[in-house]
Amino acid sequence: MLTVYAAISMKKPSHPFGELGLIEQIRRDFATSSSAVKLGIGDDCAILRPPPGCEVLVTTDFTLEGRHFRRDSHPPESVGHRCLARGLSDLAAMGATPIAAFLSLALPSTMLAESAGRTWTKSFFNGLRALAELHSVPLAGGDTSESPGGRSALILADIVLIGSAPKGKALRRSGASPGDALYVTGQLGGAAAELATMLKRRRRTPNNKAAKTTEDHPHMFPEPRLDVGEALQRRGLATACLDISDGLSTDLAHLCRASGVNAEIEQEALPIHPFAGKLDAPAALHAALHGGEDYELLFAAPSSVRLPSSLAGVPLTRIGTLKARRAGHPLMTLLAPDGSHTELKPGGWEHFSKPVRTPKKPPR
Amino acid sequence: MLTVYAAISMKKPSHPFGELGLIEQIRRDFATSSSAVKLGIGDDCAILRPPPGCEVLVTTDFTLEGRHFRRDSHPPESVGHRCLARGLSDLAAMGATPIAAFLSLALPSTMLAESAGRTWTKSFFNGLRALAELHSVPLAGGDTSESPGGRSALILADIVLIGSAPKGKALRRSGASPGDALYVTGQLGGAAAELATMLKRRRRTPNNKAAKTTEDHPHMFPEPRLDVGEALQRRGLATACLDISDGLSTDLAHLCRASGVNAEIEQEALPIHPFAGKLDAPAALHAALHGGEDYELLFAAPSSVRLPSSLAGVPLTRIGTLKARRAGHPLMTLLAPDGSHTELKPGGWEHFSKPVRTPKKPPR
Repeated sequence: MLTVYAAISMKKPSHPFGELGLIEQIRRDFATSSSAVKLGIGDDCAILRPPPGCEVLVTTDFTLEGRHFRRDSHPPESVGHRCLARGLSDLAAMGATPIAAFLSLALPSTMLAESAGRTWTKSFFNGLRALAELHSVPLAGGDTSESPGGRSALILADIVLIGSAPKGKALRRSGASPGDALYVTGQLGGAAAELATMLKRRRRTPNNKAAKTTEDHPHMFPEPRLDVGEALQRRGLATACLDISDGLSTDLAHLCRASGVNAEIEQEALPIHPFAGKLDAPAALHAALHGGEDYELLFAAPSSVRLPSSLAGVPLTRIGTLKARRAGHPLMTLLAPDGSHTELKPGGWEHFSKPVRTPKKPPR
Repeated sequence: MLTVYAAISMKKPSHPFGELGLIEQIRRDFATSSSAVKLGIGDDCAILRPPPGCEVLVTTDFTLEGRHFRRDSHPPESVGHRCLARGLSDLAAMGATPIAAFLSLALPSTMLAESAGRTWTKSFFNGLRALAELHSVPLAGGDTSESPGGRSALILADIVLIGSAPKGKALRRSGASPGDALYVTGQLGGAAAELATMLKRRRRTPNNKAAKTTEDHPHMFPEPRLDVGEALQRRGLATACLDISDGLSTDLAHLCRASGVNAEIEQEALPIHPFAGKLDAPAALHAALHGGEDYELLFAAPSSVRLPSSLAGVPLTRIGTLKARRAGHPLMTLLAPDGSHTELKPGGWEHFSKPVRTPKKPPR
């Protein structure tokens, strides 16, 4: 793998694609100063030294053009940011601390040949690096390739995150019990609402350098909740945890199945993101329940535990309760303001389905 | 990431793509029985427990249709085998022991909708699994997606290998000194020769289930030299090591640059694979020096160390000597049988170059 960077850097500067400059820049910009990375880019493997007494956590996530982003609507900084955020959010969900990231990146050959493509690539890495620096995550290696397909070649990325957690302490999906309370971090539905606005606009959203927060850009610049995940793990507060990148309804179903419980969500308790709040009520509820990509954490805690109203500066909201499994009862129910219960079905992101994440029409 | 498997498995069996069966089969077939994998497929991250006193090694490698294989010429078992072999060979080059593999796989939606596509995918996993079982490597997670691009969608894979090596003992490219002898494992040029034959045939090579060895199919079923790498590391025999997947000339240049030495290769000493031996002499030499994808190891050892003629059942051949860097002298030279020296330039695989690895025309 890491061979690649070296292989490319051997080329003459006259090579038409200009990746020499690009790759050299990656090596410089992502210099690994971490004590846990013994050997970074430039050999057959990277060498990591996890903290003693810790387990090693691994997650991989694709970011594919036309599937997870569109070049005509997403600023490249956002694509780089979200690429890394997907992996960091998986570490956050397990209460892990990042050790290093690895990026496999395939680019159409035209992108490195043309100035616009080089600018895109540079901005992609700027977005990725800004988030990496925020969380002190070194980029310790990866692979590069020309993406296949000739004129229809696409940008293809796969991010790998390696993290650590004290032995036996990582948060899982499977530890919750009936009676536990359900919490979410932050707000819901913002990512789906922002994406819908972006796609309606049908041209690339201007890159607002001043605002790269979940509050201002829940879809473009989601903040992985690493500090919250680590605090939950360290303080032993959560019995189960996962991120809700696929949508609250879909990820809650994972928690329920893994823990062998049912869940009841209180509609009125859902913390609706202001972006979703601008939609009509059914659309806002739909975005919060099924929108996906909010990269917030969903976790369970014993009802006897008094949780603070915020953790690591992020608001926590109790949104429901876990129940015992009962024959004939649905896995998940939604308690409406009028006291009526309806079955809540997983309605979030489905893999092998649509080409670009677009919010589904809300039910009327 | 690993969410994906769970997300997909939630779908109704009536779903047209049939990935429920596929993913469930992956989970069953790749059941993780390894004690180092504390948690495999089914949560936000996998949890690994590396052996005490060890460092963790990480490598990632793309396998992209149209770039690293062609659906019309490569049997799917070979694509799966080579996908995993690429990562395992990187671990072998560092003298590491595999802990687990992670696979990110994007498939065109049509492949899971059609019987031929499902058969291809099953055979791909059969090839990958056979090699994984041979080396006791569990598949502990990954990501899946529909590959983008509509009708021109391609098969996209990225393999991640995690391994371990005793602290400070992993083999690197950078430890060799002037005077060290240079060795290769196995034979050279076989992969390039077999690929040339396959591409000339212009239809898929029949899958010969009886013969999946480097000897019989150096391109289709290369054997990563894990046992040799581990033995070199354990016995402290090598001062530097890497695999020659990019071709001897290109990878030797990496070793020379990393170690700050020059190299002299003796043409007559090169162990030519019988497949390359069938070519005329210049073509055979070209395949051995620049062909690439042989997945053998190239390593340096002090000339005072007497190496066995084979290690872990794999022949070792001394092919040259390392020299001190001298101004005006080429990085690498080739000593011909008539005693003349010519400069040896890196002529192996170049990234961001040609769409499918085809052997270059030998110089005449």
